Amino acid sequence: MSKDFLFLRACRREQTERTPVWIMRQAGRYLPEYRAIREKADFLTLCKTPELASEVTVQPVDIIGVDAAILFSDILVIPEAMGMNLDVIESKGPVFEKAIRSTADVESLKTEGVTERLDYVMQAIKVTKQKLDGRVPLIGFSGAPWTLASYMVEGKGSKDFRNIKSLIYSEPRTAHRLLEKLADAVVGYLNKKIETGCDAVQIFDSWAGILSPWDFEEFSFRYLKYICEQLKTNGAPVIVFAKGVNNLEKLALLKCDVIGIDWTKDIREARAEIGDKKALQGNLDPCVLFAPKEKIKAETQRILESYGAGAGHIFNLGHGILKQTAPENARYFVECVKELSAKYHAAENAAKAS
Amino acid sequence: MSKDFLFLRACRREQTERTPVWIMRQAGRYLPEYRAIREKADFLTLCKTPELASEVTVQPVDIIGVDAAILFSDILVIPEAMGMNLDVIESKGPVFEKAIRSTADVESLKTEGVTERLDYVMQAIKVTKQKLDGRVPLIGFSGAPWTLASYMVEGKGSKDFRNIKSLIYSEPRTAHRLLEKLADAVVGYLNKKIETGCDAVQIFDSWAGILSPWDFEEFSFRYLKYICEQLKTNGAPVIVFAKGVNNLEKLALLKCDVIGIDWTKDIREARAEIGDKKALQGNLDPCVLFAPKEKIKAETQRILESYGAGAGHIFNLGHGILKQTAPENARYFVECVKELSAKYHAAENAAKAS
Repeated sequence: MSKDFLFLRACRREQTERTPVWIMRQAGRYLPEYRAIREKADFLTLCKTPELASEVTVQPVDIIGVDAAILFSDILVIPEAMGMNLDVIESKGPVFEKAIRSTADVESLKTEGVTERLDYVMQAIKVTKQKLDGRVPLIGFSGAPWTLASYMVEGKGSKDFRNIKSLIYSEPRTAHRLLEKLADAVVGYLNKKIETGCDAVQIFDSWAGILSPWDFEEFSFRYLKYICEQLKTNGAPVIVFAKGVNNLEKLALLKCDVIGIDWTKDIREARAEIGDKKALQGNLDPCVLFAPKEKIKAETQRILESYGAGAGHIFNLGHGILKQTAPENARYFVECVKELSAKYHAAENAAKAS
Repeated sequence: MSKDFLFLRACRREQTERTPVWIMRQAGRYLPEYRAIREKADFLTLCKTPELASEVTVQPVDIIGVDAAILFSDILVIPEAMGMNLDVIESKGPVFEKAIRSTADVESLKTEGVTERLDYVMQAIKVTKQKLDGRVPLIGFSGAPWTLASYMVEGKGSKDFRNIKSLIYSEPRTAHRLLEKLADAVVGYLNKKIETGCDAVQIFDSWAGILSPWDFEEFSFRYLKYICEQLKTNGAPVIVFAKGVNNLEKLALLKCDVIGIDWTKDIREARAEIGDKKALQGNLDPCVLFAPKEKIKAETQRILESYGAGAGHIFNLGHGILKQTAPENARYFVECVKELSAKYHAAENAAKAS
């Protein structure tokens, strides 16, 4: 039954009556309803309290009208479950109490029982599925090993990623040991999410774009490939979003269903490079949502036109929605996709009907 | 006579005996000799004092052994000369006292006499040329209009460039008015630099990579094109570095001699895309200089091998050198380029000799 969701059909490149749409970070600070809940609980408490996490997960379905929910959480729950103390200051971003810098640090990570310690996520999935009540499918997500390792070694966000790069260049074996541990944790975590009820999963490799082609191959792609091969999807689509990676032909080699692209690429070219191998997700510049409505509509139209007719496009922003965005503009963007996209599917639908 | 400089010949895709090398931000905080001078003067005073600016400009020629000097300055001297009060806090980056946000702000910029108010730069060029005494050529640089406008509208560095993007989406005419003023200022400034003695000029469009292909065309590329067409180069090569822009075929349409590329692109592919139209500058990841020497050597070798035999490569990092870099490693990198690159020019040189 869940196989009939518009979003899931588009992920599988099946014919749809229109283009589905959701928004990265759609459950978040730009919504007053989210901020109201955050007043009751800090960020990590929100992640760890199924009742609250499910509530904010469902908010954008009701308020913005998106075609999929994505379980509210954070990519850093995995390192936290490995024993790293995490402090999330929303104005500054996440900070680990102690960064990973040595082989001993890597070996001290608790790799046994990670999925069990993340049981609060599974509970949140169950409650969310009840609240969604079959309206839209639920996406679960994880950070990719490279991105998780970057945060763990830097200890926080970074501009130059000097520490993680020093590690991969100076102690590549230690870096690989860390990435292997993370890859196994991600596989276990995502498999459990799918088993628990997620209808699709997305892997965020937010920092893959800071690597040279060779380092990307060795320290990011290798682990994305491993994860995609190890997932027991049971039919749930797998979305890979390796922000800033322009080698789409390479990404298309992954055993996944959808490739997310950021806004710096023309989706027409992305489609030409990837061909019919994958669905594409994206790619409006999040800042377009600060524009007047006619501009939001025009830019949405441009991307629909650029992708062109036919199956396999999931509309989204090219990166997470910014906290200063007016919810009204997010809602309008979603309406535009719904309204303007039908004609790009008309031929297919007519062919099916005839 | 200056036409015989190795660096300049490589910019013109002429045959050279080896690959020339210089380092973006080579005059800067990673050098103890630079820090010693900075103790005597704040950042802007350093820019504005020809004796000091020339001194730090020449330092890396002596200490690191680079094949070109680049005049010590900052891209934000242009907005400062237009009347914007600038405070450079090196730990935080540059901050304008008041950002440009409205049409009135744009109109209040002093566009007359900008080059005259930047006469301290011209004086620094003259003193530097004397100090260089013909050892290596001198590069002058400017920020590109898009990058300058981004700083001016944001008021400081930004993660999401929300303000400048809001401006281009909401008030495109105001944005273009600002960009036009900047483009004319850049043309006047660079022409004067060349006239005063710079042997080459580089245009930094550091933030071009944050734009969608359409916005890049309209708000960045258009002005790069205008500037390149308006420059009176008198034979001085023009280098364009639009960081993060992957559409190299587009950049190759510019009336310039050299395209700078960051480290996320395989220089072999860049060469294949651009063909023989332009020389290429780059592209070692600055973080490789934190690696052990054998890794620095191997990565330098990899890029030389990737570019392959023949003219038209200027070795550089793919972005500015980081302040935490050991000068010894920068020096070793330069030595590696000098030592390892000769063989990629052997066939040409043999052909010339025979």
